[in-house]
Amino acid sequence: MNNLELIKGISRTSPEKIVLLVIDGLGGLPNPKTGRTELETARLPNLDALAARGICGLADPIAPGITPGSGPGHLALFGYDPVEYNVGRGVLEALGIDIELKEGEIAARGNFCSIDEKGIITDRRAGRISTEKCAELCQLLDGMSANGVDIKLYAVKEHRFVSIFHGGYLHEELTDSDPSRTGVAPLKVAAEKTIAGGTASIVNEFIAKVRDVLKGHSPANMILLRGFSKKPNFPSMQAIYKLNPLAIAVYPMYRGLAKLVGMDIARTGLSLEDEIKTLKDNFAKYDFFFLHVKQTDTAGEDGDFARKVKALEQIDAALPGLIDLKPDILVITGDHSTPAVLGAHSWHPVPVLLCAKYCRTDGVKEFSEKAFLAGGLGRIKTTDIMPLAMANALKLTKFGA
Amino acid sequence: MNNLELIKGISRTSPEKIVLLVIDGLGGLPNPKTGRTELETARLPNLDALAARGICGLADPIAPGITPGSGPGHLALFGYDPVEYNVGRGVLEALGIDIELKEGEIAARGNFCSIDEKGIITDRRAGRISTEKCAELCQLLDGMSANGVDIKLYAVKEHRFVSIFHGGYLHEELTDSDPSRTGVAPLKVAAEKTIAGGTASIVNEFIAKVRDVLKGHSPANMILLRGFSKKPNFPSMQAIYKLNPLAIAVYPMYRGLAKLVGMDIARTGLSLEDEIKTLKDNFAKYDFFFLHVKQTDTAGEDGDFARKVKALEQIDAALPGLIDLKPDILVITGDHSTPAVLGAHSWHPVPVLLCAKYCRTDGVKEFSEKAFLAGGLGRIKTTDIMPLAMANALKLTKFGA
Repeated sequence: MNNLELIKGISRTSPEKIVLLVIDGLGGLPNPKTGRTELETARLPNLDALAARGICGLADPIAPGITPGSGPGHLALFGYDPVEYNVGRGVLEALGIDIELKEGEIAARGNFCSIDEKGIITDRRAGRISTEKCAELCQLLDGMSANGVDIKLYAVKEHRFVSIFHGGYLHEELTDSDPSRTGVAPLKVAAEKTIAGGTASIVNEFIAKVRDVLKGHSPANMILLRGFSKKPNFPSMQAIYKLNPLAIAVYPMYRGLAKLVGMDIARTGLSLEDEIKTLKDNFAKYDFFFLHVKQTDTAGEDGDFARKVKALEQIDAALPGLIDLKPDILVITGDHSTPAVLGAHSWHPVPVLLCAKYCRTDGVKEFSEKAFLAGGLGRIKTTDIMPLAMANALKLTKFGA
Repeated sequence: MNNLELIKGISRTSPEKIVLLVIDGLGGLPNPKTGRTELETARLPNLDALAARGICGLADPIAPGITPGSGPGHLALFGYDPVEYNVGRGVLEALGIDIELKEGEIAARGNFCSIDEKGIITDRRAGRISTEKCAELCQLLDGMSANGVDIKLYAVKEHRFVSIFHGGYLHEELTDSDPSRTGVAPLKVAAEKTIAGGTASIVNEFIAKVRDVLKGHSPANMILLRGFSKKPNFPSMQAIYKLNPLAIAVYPMYRGLAKLVGMDIARTGLSLEDEIKTLKDNFAKYDFFFLHVKQTDTAGEDGDFARKVKALEQIDAALPGLIDLKPDILVITGDHSTPAVLGAHSWHPVPVLLCAKYCRTDGVKEFSEKAFLAGGLGRIKTTDIMPLAMANALKLTKFGA
């Protein structure tokens, strides 16, 4: 029995409302100049006050040492073991540009790349062509088919695109054509299971046709595909938790991940204030709310310590609007750490705060990585957060008599 | 390999003696008036002194957020993963009134209930009839049989009883007849596996006969059955740990749970002083002792903060008798938290204290939920406690070379 099955067996409805605020890339590392992390540098009076009345801790999205992508990070937050409930790269990329995959379709992440006259890859990103150029090439290649299967290409950003294969009985058990390095030719796509042999041939036929069309379009004279995958069939949050959940997120990928677990999606504006307004407007209609804020992660990924500090302070400033709604359970955490000094997602455990009537508060009075070490939650797995929120909302009956 | 198999492979005997004192429902929540939990309110000089010389922490019986029943809570304390080693509701109820199930017998938890002339349940508890009335009705229904299977009924308390099915080849894979709500008819018992089809028919035949007999005995004119189960076949503590274990408990259910894992059962009196006397009398004969104290849980379940505080102080006062025996390993913990402010078992992690020569003590000097956050054990799973006790008793050899 996995954890979701256990929870499904004991979940029940209650009037209590849960708000899960995800501050993307929340955790950080000390600035070498000051010795203080982004959270320790920012002035966060509202988060500090919440820390004082809630229970705090640190959470590992997957396991100690494992850096999660956005997909696994969010699935863990929703309570789904991200190793067991895996979302393919192609599907994630499609979600990221708001494409909803249909039954049976396969998505793959694509790169326009450069090959020499012998077919050897010289640049996996075709000199990072502009997004406009990428869109133009996708247009050029659009409407192609191979053995009765239609392929659509959607530009993402610079050299990146998504390809969607539609028609017939397609199988996703395929190896990548992208060798992940230069100096070799693109790989033939192979079937990882016998049943996917036909699909592999179709993909290879498509790639060969693309190569013919792109001849002379240097530097973008070839494509590389990876992460062939179908939309996964996950149990819904309604089925597991008996919740009526709403997602409020600006970026398509997070809305898409929420949709994979059955959440309704709200239309919202670009700022956290807009999101909180959307929360307020929908507060009576749902009992679970996922709010996503992206700016912290973007600043961290850009290696911009000061901008991440500022983003945290802006979030803190917007919080009273959320607190005024008096959610019975308020959880504030991140999907992973993104320390500005690393300029990337990291493996460091993520601060997590839970405020609720029966949370058994601890002695923590400051919202930071170091202060949370003494928190009452200790070091938990990110997948423990949903059961804890559910328990505090009195939405779980006891296990066994 | 599950944890018990690992332990079984490395366990060995040693002269050291382990005492596991289970204070039922030990952990609590702050009293809203004072901000202090039951443990923080009680004067506990002996427990505080033990905390100062032992190693402390907090344990999750099942997982963060999951509230355990008494069965899973105790199995976890004995080192058995309570999700894997599940005890059926019927069996637990039988253990609770000191009935030992025989090979092949099935037990079910029963309610006397009220149905209207159309057979619709109007009260799942028949107006909570008296225990005497329940005993009288069990007497009336006793000695019934269906298709060669004899059924015995045992009154528990108010509307509750246990039914035992005996004879033939019975299978426990049955759904409940109790729909867990009013406004509908009792459910037909169905087989969850094909092999249990015959048993389902027998149970349904029995229920139909009972209905005929109870006609006119309003409000208790029908029964509801749930949790059909056979006595589980768990590996014994002797086999896993090579221990010679003794259980000292006043309430039948805890003796019954101890029996399921192979413990000998001591006759004892009603107070902790009596139990400690029993411990002393048997101290030479065994090397593992499970002592159970119930009063803390009962007070917590009754929502009586002051009584739970008093029960804790009484336990503390009795401890010198136990400490004088100088057990090599003394573990003091609970099977789950029962905060008086909730009036029920809860999901909050449970304080755990281990005193032993080689325990690597921490800086904790007070026996409380908050003080234990800084303990050397950190936040562990309750199933980790037995391996820790065994290790401290030098009863585990190393794993691998």
